Formats: sequence, structure tokens, C-alpha cells
Amino acid sequence: MTATQKIRKQAEEAKEASRILARSASLQKDEALRQMAKALVREEESIMTANCEDRKAAQDAGKTAAFLDRLTLNPQRIRAMARALEEIADLPDPVGEVTEMRVRPNGLRVGRMRVPLGVVGVIYESRPSVSADAAGLCLKSGNAVILRGGKESLASNKSITSILSREAQREGLPDKSITLIDDPDRAILLELLRLFGLIDILIPRGGPDLIRFVAENSQIPVIRHEKGICHLFVDESADPPMAEEVAFNAKVQRPGVCNAMETLLVHERIAPIFLPRVARRLEQAGVELRGCPRSRAIYSSLREASDEDWDTEYLDLILSIRIVSDLEEAMGHIALHGSGLAEAIVTENYSQALRFVQEVDSSCVFVNASTRFADGGEFGMGAEIGISTQKLHARGPMGLRELTCTKFIVLGQGQVRK
Amino acid sequence: MTATQKIRKQAEEAKEASRILARSASLQKDEALRQMAKALVREEESIMTANCEDRKAAQDAGKTAAFLDRLTLNPQRIRAMARALEEIADLPDPVGEVTEMRVRPNGLRVGRMRVPLGVVGVIYESRPSVSADAAGLCLKSGNAVILRGGKESLASNKSITSILSREAQREGLPDKSITLIDDPDRAILLELLRLFGLIDILIPRGGPDLIRFVAENSQIPVIRHEKGICHLFVDESADPPMAEEVAFNAKVQRPGVCNAMETLLVHERIAPIFLPRVARRLEQAGVELRGCPRSRAIYSSLREASDEDWDTEYLDLILSIRIVSDLEEAMGHIALHGSGLAEAIVTENYSQALRFVQEVDSSCVFVNASTRFADGGEFGMGAEIGISTQKLHARGPMGLRELTCTKFIVLGQGQVRK
Repeated sequence: MTATQKIRKQAEEAKEASRILARSASLQKDEALRQMAKALVREEESIMTANCEDRKAAQDAGKTAAFLDRLTLNPQRIRAMARALEEIADLPDPVGEVTEMRVRPNGLRVGRMRVPLGVVGVIYESRPSVSADAAGLCLKSGNAVILRGGKESLASNKSITSILSREAQREGLPDKSITLIDDPDRAILLELLRLFGLIDILIPRGGPDLIRFVAENSQIPVIRHEKGICHLFVDESADPPMAEEVAFNAKVQRPGVCNAMETLLVHERIAPIFLPRVARRLEQAGVELRGCPRSRAIYSSLREASDEDWDTEYLDLILSIRIVSDLEEAMGHIALHGSGLAEAIVTENYSQALRFVQEVDSSCVFVNASTRFADGGEFGMGAEIGISTQKLHARGPMGLRELTCTKFIVLGQGQVRK
Repeated sequence: MTATQKIRKQAEEAKEASRILARSASLQKDEALRQMAKALVREEESIMTANCEDRKAAQDAGKTAAFLDRLTLNPQRIRAMARALEEIADLPDPVGEVTEMRVRPNGLRVGRMRVPLGVVGVIYESRPSVSADAAGLCLKSGNAVILRGGKESLASNKSITSILSREAQREGLPDKSITLIDDPDRAILLELLRLFGLIDILIPRGGPDLIRFVAENSQIPVIRHEKGICHLFVDESADPPMAEEVAFNAKVQRPGVCNAMETLLVHERIAPIFLPRVARRLEQAGVELRGCPRSRAIYSSLREASDEDWDTEYLDLILSIRIVSDLEEAMGHIALHGSGLAEAIVTENYSQALRFVQEVDSSCVFVNASTRFADGGEFGMGAEIGISTQKLHARGPMGLRELTCTKFIVLGQGQVRK
């Protein structure tokens, strides 16, 4: 069997498994998730042995410290993976929910039933914990999953998924519920992207190059999670201490993540009192500030922002600052430079808040709160498989429900169409 | 300006228009739709003159009678287009609806707001009425639309869209709300398919070749509406007269449409009494019957069904019939040969009905009703822009709501993340 035939066969088996998973009871899926969590902790040694192998190869290949950190598993991280699986088990099962069932004039009852997507492909880079998170979320939502991790974490991924598969099988779920593609060849990834009809959706998780490669080469629908260039607009009517807290939190609390603020827009009327205070505090926290000419006139220690700054996701303690004349200009800047992930306004003005919420085209729009809340857990959705910055199917944090679709169900009493 | 530059500019202008449309009030959109309807009827003469031109060219090119029929506009058809626009005006506006707003433990209010997709591309063949339907549905749902009809209906489409655009503009909506691509070159269509980021979604409406071409070449997400190979399973416990009525209706009432039945599956225990009755009645209505060996043993005048029959969308008075041993075999046949559009069971058995509804993977699943009801209007959704047979974003009949997406909105009082 060639590698191409093998991957097609794996996808066919996953499809077959997905039909059984789709009708598996929540109790059974939850028990499997709990056993999977226990087994990860119990077999921590063997996972760490596999991980050592990966790390050694990565070290020999001269990978960076940041790369090695993402790759590394330790007892703490393994326990966190296990806890995530337990949390998924505790979430309500979205499958089978019927909504909007209404009776038509002819007596037909028409509703929508939530059902799994089928087979979900997850393509990721070096973090081995994605294997467990993705497998858990897909299993709970009744989907089979095909995992394709980075070649640098192959031994770790093999170790984790073989434990998860075994436990799923022990609980009576299909052994092909979780499939790891263990051929690191890029040609195989290309084959995978062409399995339209067998794989229902692809979720790439990783850097912009990976996402672009998947989106451009895939015949299967892809859920994109692109960069997060998040904006905070401090309106004329903002409460200055609140604006300061929100801005500080959005930039500093965890700068390396996609929902951290990258650009601060300040209304010209509040800038003279607000900007120096927040700038000083941010500088004290080690943030490098880059400003437009108007903001530099108010706070002279700002570096000059270049044109690229407005389009840069720093993921670091750097912030670009721009003074705007009004809400219109702020929203225009966001429309031009935002990545559609999360934007916030701080204001006490009702009409400005309403316009911002209605008109800003972003997956999460905040009034008087930090962009850092753009997260499935914070929104009450439980664990997330990613944050979609596209409009189709799922937008914003994607939880269990976003791994399903609906079908129409129609209950009749012999109705025929006239 | 080259043709490529022109189409990009058109898409940019549509994007710009979509921002204004997204915040336009329902009253204004509805008034525009009503004025558009009136203008179509008032200017019926000029539309028919343009249509004559198209028809003459199509005749000269030796197109078939069926093609010419699809292309033809007459006062009746123009009035039907106008009525469809009025009906769209009467539907509730999906834009701005907020659902599931809940208060988080920290006091944040998190909900989902329904917003337009942005720019919708509709690619279709010879039917000029699609221009008005698609423009009306997109306008009402707050989307700008880019229309790309078949080159054979170009004059008709120009005439219709120039009337619609003018009326939209008179009501204060952007003049680029409705854009017709008037360059019939296929290279231009290819350019259109590459405008990722400017066009948010593509809806191809037409034959399988068009849909495949669009899906395979597009970088923009595509909503597929593929063929309808619809099944009806008559279970052992079915009420025979009900089963006969439903089967007859599903095949005969309008055989040329996608939700008509193409394959009848009959439980072996009911076949001896049910099959001869329904077969005779279908034959009397001029239906050609093709059966499996077991069904031919019961009703000898059946032609033998070939392997291809089970995968054929006849769109005609032809029906394939197969006897199955149980529900399992029926669902197995559907999983293998169905196109995922609409499937029905006739049964009086509760457990069989429940399993069929839960397990059949189709956009519309019916119990004791004709598949012919798989339709946006029949489901109470109003006019539809198509029936999606895919799982992502929209599945089944697509109405106004399916031309929108949601974003998260979060209302706070200064919350920051700990």
C-alpha cells in the first residue's frame, strides 16, 4: 500500500468510526474521557520518555529555546492535559439538541437537530498537548478526529494518542475514533488536504505559514484562526481610571497571546489627561510605546510608529498608540488594520457604545472590558479548539457546539405536498 | 484598467457598500425592495426587450428548448420576480438579533449578535430571475451582492439589475449594493474566485459542472448545493395507504426538482402487499420503474436496476426500487448512495422513527411526510437562496438567516482579566 492509499484508508476508517461515534451516548463518551485522563497521569513516565526523544532530536537540530519549551512535557503539563479532558467530560453534550421546533400550518413539525460534523482534521505544530485537547473535544462532540502534528513532536503524539485510543476502545468506542498521521512527509499533508468527502472540516493550529499553506491547498473547508491585532478605543467620555485599568490589562496581563491589545486608539479630547498617565504606567511595566505624531506631541518619550506598526501583531510588550478625532476615525482605523478577532471601546456614552457594538466587524466586540476575555472559557463555552477569525460556520471562540452542525428534522402524519 | 483590475475594484466598492448596508435600517431596506418590485412590473417592456435579444442569440446558437425556456421572461414571470421581492420585504430582518446573552460570574454580559456576512457572490447560469431573487435576499440580509450570471442571459440581467440598483439608490442605499459582472469571459470568473478577503462567500447555482468548477477553483468559501438523490424508506410497520400517498407524492408531484424521491426502499415484510399497489399506481402515472432482483420477484414488470441507478439523480419520471431486510440495511444504502439532501421514513414504530431521525446524515430528515417539503418556504423560512448539502455554515434550505453570521458582544463595567 502506498502512503497515499494508506492515508485514504485511514480517512475511510475514521469516517466509518464517526458514524458510530455520532450515535454514542454521552455517558459512554464521558466515561471514556475520564479514563483517558486517568491513563495519561498513570502513564506519565512513558509519555515523558517519548517526549525526551523528541526533545533530544529538536536540540540536535538546533531548535530555539522557545520551540523546545512548546515541545516539552513535564508532570505538570501532563496533569493539565488530563484536567482538560475531565473538564470536557463535565460539559453538556451538544449532540441531539433540537431547537426551534415549530408546527407549520399543515401540521408538520419542523425543527433543527444538532449533529456531529463527522471527521475533523486538526493540523498543528510542536505542542503535543494539542493532541489530547483536540481528541477530547472531537470525541465529546461525536466526531472522529485525524491528528497531524509537527514532525518534531511525533514520538510524544504517538505516545499520547495510543493511550487515548486504547482507553476509548476499552469503553466500547471505535478504535478509529482518534487517528494520528505518523508519516511526517509534507506530501502526505497535501494528500490529506485533498480528502474532500472523507474529512468534513480542517482546523489548522499554528503560525501564519501553516494556516496559509492549509487554506491555499485544501479542498476541504478550513476554519481559519489568523492573527489577532486587537484594538482598544478610549472614547472622549471614558472614565479615565477604568480606561487605564482596561488598557493596562489588555496589553500587559499576557502579551504573548492573540487577544492581547496591539493598538490603543485615544479620542483627542481625552488624550491630554489620559495618555500621559497610561503611558507612564505601561512604560513602568516594560512596554515599548510607539505613537503617531499627535500622540508624540502629548507624550514626548514615544517612539515614532511606522506604517507597518499598525498592521503588526507584536505578541510582546510593545504597543502602538494613535490619537483619533472621533469614533468614526477609530472605527475606520479598525476596519483597515484590525484582524477581526477582538476590539474594545471604553466609554460612558450610550450612543457611542451602541454604534461600536453594531458596526465593528470583529468576532468579539467589547464595551468597558479587556480584550483578554475573548476566550471560550471566559465566555462560558468551556474548552475551545481555537478562535475563528472567519465568518462562515464559526466565528470567535470555538467550543463543542462549533464542532457540530444542524440538520432539519420533520415529523409528519402522512403529509404530502399539494 | 485591465479586466482583472476592474473586477477587483468592483469587489472593493461592493465591500465598501456592504459596510453601509450592514447598518441600514429594516424600514429603508424594505421600502427599497418594494420600490424594486414596482419598478420591475412598471418597466416590464424594457426587460422583455432585453430578454428578446438574449433569446434570439440563444436560438441562433442552437440552444435546446429547455434552455430557452429557462432563459425566457414573460409578464407572468416578471410579476413572480416582483412578488418574490415583496415577500422578502415582509420577512423579519435577521440583522441585529442578539441571542443567548448571559451574565458571567464576573458580571460580564456575553451574547451573540447576528450580522451580515459582507459581500456575497452568486454565480448562476441562464435563469435571469435569479438576479432579482439573489439581490433581494442579500439586500434584506444587509449584504452587498456580486452577481455573475450566464453569458446567454447578460442583456436580461443587465436590464434587471440596473432597475434594482437605481431603486436601491433612490431609497438612499449605496449604489454598489448590487453589482453585475458584465464581462462574460471565463477568465474573469476565475479572477472573481480569487478575491478572498473582498468576497465573503460564494453561492454557485446551477448544474454540477458549474458547482464543481467554482468549488475547485475558489479561494473563497463556497456553499455547495449538489444533487438530490432522495430516498424514502417504507418500514415494516408503515401504514400502507399513507406510505403509498407519500411515495406517490415524493416521486410524481414534481419530478424535475432536487427534493423529489429517486429511490424507494421497502422493508421485505411489507413489500408483498405494498409494492404491487404502489408500483401499479406509479406506472399509471407514467413512472418507469427499475428494481432490484428481490423486488422484481414480487412485481415482475420492473426493469432491472443497474449499479448506476442507485447513484443517479433522474429528475424525471423514473424510480429505482430496492427491497431491504431491515432499517439497518436501508440506512446503509442511504449512507452509501444518498446525496445528503432529504430522506424520509414511513413507519408507525417509535424506535425505528427515532433511530432514522438520529442516524440518517442528511440535511432534511422526514418521518411520515414527503421529501418534497424540503424547501425554505415550506419550512417557514421564507424565500431561499438555495439548499446546502454541505455541513459547514448552512445545511438544508438557506434563507435570510443563513446569509448572516454572528459575532460575540460583551458588555462590561470595567472588568479586567486576573
